[in-house]
Amino acid sequence: MDKRLEKQLAFSLEIDKEKNVFRQTHLSGHGRNENDAEHAWHMAIMAYLLREYANEEVDITKVMLMCLIHDIVEIDAGDTYAYDEENLKTQKAREDAAKERIFSLLPDDQKEELTALFDEFEAYETAEAKFAHSLDNLQPLMLNNSNDGSDWIEHGVSASTIYGRQRKTKMGSVKLFEITDQIIRDHIRKGTIPE
Amino acid sequence: MDKRLEKQLAFSLEIDKEKNVFRQTHLSGHGRNENDAEHAWHMAIMAYLLREYANEEVDITKVMLMCLIHDIVEIDAGDTYAYDEENLKTQKAREDAAKERIFSLLPDDQKEELTALFDEFEAYETAEAKFAHSLDNLQPLMLNNSNDGSDWIEHGVSASTIYGRQRKTKMGSVKLFEITDQIIRDHIRKGTIPE
Repeated sequence: MDKRLEKQLAFSLEIDKEKNVFRQTHLSGHGRNENDAEHAWHMAIMAYLLREYANEEVDITKVMLMCLIHDIVEIDAGDTYAYDEENLKTQKAREDAAKERIFSLLPDDQKEELTALFDEFEAYETAEAKFAHSLDNLQPLMLNNSNDGSDWIEHGVSASTIYGRQRKTKMGSVKLFEITDQIIRDHIRKGTIPE
Repeated sequence: MDKRLEKQLAFSLEIDKEKNVFRQTHLSGHGRNENDAEHAWHMAIMAYLLREYANEEVDITKVMLMCLIHDIVEIDAGDTYAYDEENLKTQKAREDAAKERIFSLLPDDQKEELTALFDEFEAYETAEAKFAHSLDNLQPLMLNNSNDGSDWIEHGVSASTIYGRQRKTKMGSVKLFEITDQIIRDHIRKGTIPE
């Protein structure tokens, strides 16, 4: 087998491990914890279907790719829960090391491309990154809402903490933030989330 | 919430169930059975990374979307193992009913679009469909190979049965069929697959 294809397949096999990285979010129907690969799949489809609500025009292929690869570093670095203050401090260093190791399995040009795409997502600056983040926020919120907010209850997070993260959804999509806000208010009213 | 967004979110929530449809393939490292959502995620990334090997030029966004949605009907119809002759007979009718129910959750234009994309994949005619099928074949072969062919051993499938399916990989990518052929020959030589 030629070296290039060999490297591409080595990377492809390595990322299989993302299916074993579990998140705090639970599947709908009060199911098991969701894993990173499923989350990424779900986000990518939602990005495509909801692209009309992006604040700015987006390159949807780029958004979908960002969604698909944005958690690959967690194969080494693990999932850091959005409201886990302690682990959030070391997240960047752990993810940088993982990024270097995992993307280095690819041929140089593809390593460069995927690293740049990953960094673009993290930087939260381009229209594509902002919209991809909106989906990264909306997808678990949707599942959690379908489960009567059980993930919030389990972690005892407050409305201000939730808004701290979810407010950023607005940067990618004002429309998707409206529905996010509606869902959060609804849970505050029902007492799922302490004010 | 407006009706259109409501329908889009209803569909988005419904497809969460695809994470509970398990396949015969096992994750690398002799892991658990893989589910359809993870499989689709894996295929979509591989399609992007390996697109240079498609026989014809492909619209990669379309290929990735096909990969992401090609198993949604299995939410109702279940996974039909590639070498299960009995269930293969009723597969089409079960999947047609599922396709109608699930895609009907979407607004009409998106129902039409995703149904057409699903049908295009199934028809195996366009460059995009043929290449997406190559990935649908290569991805589980790669996992199974990493597990010393344990899925073939479990089902006692023969080389001719495997070639019957895998030969079609050639329609989408001669190059990816070469490596497929190499892997199958290797397992025949090692006695994993009876000749």
